[in-house]
Amino acid sequence: MTFSGVMAAGKPPELGNLIDIDKIRYDDQGLVAIAIQDILNGGVLALGSMNREALQKTLATQQLWWVQQSQIELWHPDIILESISYDYRGNFLVAGVAYCPSELNGSGGHTLAGLFRVICDRRDHPNSQSYTCQLFAGGDNKILKKIGEEAAEVVMACKDDEPQAIASEVADLFYHSLVALAYHQVDLRKVYEQLEARRQ
Amino acid sequence: MTFSGVMAAGKPPELGNLIDIDKIRYDDQGLVAIAIQDILNGGVLALGSMNREALQKTLATQQLWWVQQSQIELWHPDIILESISYDYRGNFLVAGVAYCPSELNGSGGHTLAGLFRVICDRRDHPNSQSYTCQLFAGGDNKILKKIGEEAAEVVMACKDDEPQAIASEVADLFYHSLVALAYHQVDLRKVYEQLEARRQ
Repeated sequence: MTFSGVMAAGKPPELGNLIDIDKIRYDDQGLVAIAIQDILNGGVLALGSMNREALQKTLATQQLWWVQQSQIELWHPDIILESISYDYRGNFLVAGVAYCPSELNGSGGHTLAGLFRVICDRRDHPNSQSYTCQLFAGGDNKILKKIGEEAAEVVMACKDDEPQAIASEVADLFYHSLVALAYHQVDLRKVYEQLEARRQ
Repeated sequence: MTFSGVMAAGKPPELGNLIDIDKIRYDDQGLVAIAIQDILNGGVLALGSMNREALQKTLATQQLWWVQQSQIELWHPDIILESISYDYRGNFLVAGVAYCPSELNGSGGHTLAGLFRVICDRRDHPNSQSYTCQLFAGGDNKILKKIGEEAAEVVMACKDDEPQAIASEVADLFYHSLVALAYHQVDLRKVYEQLEARRQ
């Protein structure tokens, strides 16, 4: 069970209405665990603790305050706090942040971000055995032909209404799109930024 | 800076070679923080603590052991531990797990997973003002026509070698692919499972 709120830059804070601070279970030191997550690639940027006061200050200022050695401190001045949610069952908070300074790399992430790292690594360390490297060697004409082909296969799988085939063909289309991004030195984060911008 | 290791089911553990337990900085109670993350959608499933013994047991058994009230406990028997990494600067561990039991929802996630939730919500609560709802109303013929169109626009943007246009057109292609998945009731997780299976 999750209570969550989303704050968009320039809008009044709605977060206070969505997270009920009184429902949060603090430990005997008044603390609750928080993960700070890069919403663009799912990477975990930091783990730490909040108390009631830090959370109130976070809601009031829309900047992320947490507890470091019993002091309330601003986590990072130049990020945008996009969302905060409380996992009631697991008893922890997750703050979603965007537009991180480049020195924050994060750890973990999700499937597509991990696959993109592998594809970029294949681009930078060619190995003729790898299908991905063969695509790079063929350049745009080979990569883009596959995008057209996989898009047509998504269309056919949908027309056949075959769930397994649809998942498989969309996976192929995503994979070849990542290869095209890598070939043109476009970061997957740029794609996510476009998608985030349209949700505003 | 991150040291990370990946364990695939059925393979011998390679993790011990990649994470150096002696480099991990434990606090004065011998603990280090860990986030357990769903690698398929980036959701944070749990936050907790490890000690040296729990980490050794995790590496030896390829199951996830952590510390709960000073005891070493198995986190969840029926998940697959895919990766574990140590964020040296932030001083925390991230365990990536897959094939979670459905009662574990997770909190947070990343852009594409969040967008898919919004698209499914539009499907289930139609609103004629929304572009997404207009696509659903047009059915396969409207949605799939857009996939063909966006794929062609990715091809053209790559041929022009315009990074901003490439990011924008891949974003459009991803978005319309998510609409096709939602229309056919195929979960984005199924796509990620396909991509994970191919990385083995």
